[in-house]
Amino acid sequence: MNEIKIFSPATIANVSCGFDVLGLALDTVGDEMIIRKVKQKGVRITKIIGQDLPLETHKNVAGVAALAFLAKTDSEFGFEIEIDKQIKPGSGIGSSAASSAGAVWAINELLEKPFKTIDLVRFAMEGERLATGVAHADNVAPALFGGFTLVRSYEPLDIVSIHTPRELFATVIHPHIEIKTSDARNILKTKVPLKDAIKQWGNVGGLISGLYTEDYDLIGRSLEDYIIEPIRSILIPAFDAVKKQSLKAGALGCGISGSGPSIFALCKGEESALNVAEAMKLVYNKVGVDYDIHVSKVNKKGIKIL
Amino acid sequence: MNEIKIFSPATIANVSCGFDVLGLALDTVGDEMIIRKVKQKGVRITKIIGQDLPLETHKNVAGVAALAFLAKTDSEFGFEIEIDKQIKPGSGIGSSAASSAGAVWAINELLEKPFKTIDLVRFAMEGERLATGVAHADNVAPALFGGFTLVRSYEPLDIVSIHTPRELFATVIHPHIEIKTSDARNILKTKVPLKDAIKQWGNVGGLISGLYTEDYDLIGRSLEDYIIEPIRSILIPAFDAVKKQSLKAGALGCGISGSGPSIFALCKGEESALNVAEAMKLVYNKVGVDYDIHVSKVNKKGIKIL
Repeated sequence: MNEIKIFSPATIANVSCGFDVLGLALDTVGDEMIIRKVKQKGVRITKIIGQDLPLETHKNVAGVAALAFLAKTDSEFGFEIEIDKQIKPGSGIGSSAASSAGAVWAINELLEKPFKTIDLVRFAMEGERLATGVAHADNVAPALFGGFTLVRSYEPLDIVSIHTPRELFATVIHPHIEIKTSDARNILKTKVPLKDAIKQWGNVGGLISGLYTEDYDLIGRSLEDYIIEPIRSILIPAFDAVKKQSLKAGALGCGISGSGPSIFALCKGEESALNVAEAMKLVYNKVGVDYDIHVSKVNKKGIKIL
Repeated sequence: MNEIKIFSPATIANVSCGFDVLGLALDTVGDEMIIRKVKQKGVRITKIIGQDLPLETHKNVAGVAALAFLAKTDSEFGFEIEIDKQIKPGSGIGSSAASSAGAVWAINELLEKPFKTIDLVRFAMEGERLATGVAHADNVAPALFGGFTLVRSYEPLDIVSIHTPRELFATVIHPHIEIKTSDARNILKTKVPLKDAIKQWGNVGGLISGLYTEDYDLIGRSLEDYIIEPIRSILIPAFDAVKKQSLKAGALGCGISGSGPSIFALCKGEESALNVAEAMKLVYNKVGVDYDIHVSKVNKKGIKIL
């Protein structure tokens, strides 16, 4: 096999209570990529459609991730990468992570899997370092493992795949405003009240338990963020209204996707997720903000061959 | 049935990463209680052996918990309580919780279960309020539900029973020194670094996941407390040495039980737990601190009839 065409999913990081540790993969939105094994060594980005992104390998997250991979092998091959960029950069649903993760996953397939998934996370994190200045894993982990993932620890890197209930759907609305990940991070306080932190880890425990037992009510009750959302939501137009209307329309819970501006809701079943999508759209139609909207089953598989 | 004899277990609260939210029940140490349904209304503590504790109903945690129960019924009966107090007060393994939980559980049995377990938690919390000034639930919940429990939220009260792996054992050593719960609480900081809180809730997520999947290594890796232990452990003689030797002897993890001074270790299998007990004893024998030691399977049932 010398060429592979893949789908690399968008992802929701944080998932309300799990700031910097939890993430999940989507199914209906993601980048499509073609990766080609060639004789000429090195990595070349040969084509990008859909977005205006750098073709220089060292400036492209997929390129940097691929180079990190190849630096750990003595492969006699090089790789060409084409990206059909369907996830908008800066949307808060893991745009850079999808391209980084997709590149290393595909190269690993073409080389007959010299590396484990956890190693691929490490390589893809180098793409994240280029995109945001921080080599975080909460988007690349769910893209590579599928389903819900927990980044339990960075030193050493410890990723836990969490059981994902069958009927879990996500609705994501992306209002067309720009929030830089670095700004979204700088706005946060470096110290937090212990009493809020306790509530937060109570919710992380509840969410993980609800996922394993497929207790949708418990999942919903646990989707509450006492630390980050009260601060970051200020940056997102009509956040409170979107959340309120989503819950009213039947969402289990609703919060900020990654560092925003996308807002996600988790729902039991597709019908509920579609109802929530209508409720979200109504809010932004009223306030006159343009948006994209996605309704997706939580993707248990992660990246897949097309 | 007019009389019931029960075993109400000692419990380990916090369990390293789960400060104020996690707890588990023990099997080999607990209070024995006789509760008698009588014609004379009200609650009387008729006998306490093993410890010097108040017999006045309003000053005794079991009495106060029983009164909280009866205030929510129109029972035509009263109750007499005898306590064989086998858990030492101030040991950090839920002494007051065992008596409070035992009293309300037994009365509920004698009245043919008018209340659910979650309601019994509420009544037993009144005993905790008397004992420590705070109506916490992280000891009474595992005593009443058995196994591992998560207090996800207090308002509203939301207790989650967590799956408990079959081979999970605890070793607990109680050095004979006094730490008041109020002192152990006052020493804590009211604000904590966000970066430490993130590691902590990563570990809570890892621990809960490890419990459901019976992944003992993951349980062990997650038993790390970045917030409370570094401060409270200073109050416990030779804490670092006990922890180090426990891990060396094969413990999955080791930390402070509740607000101390007891130190607990979780182990896979009884043999490992016994090895850890020997290692803990050696440390305190060397430094010349008296102690009690308990080795117990994690008790999945909670309170039981004898």
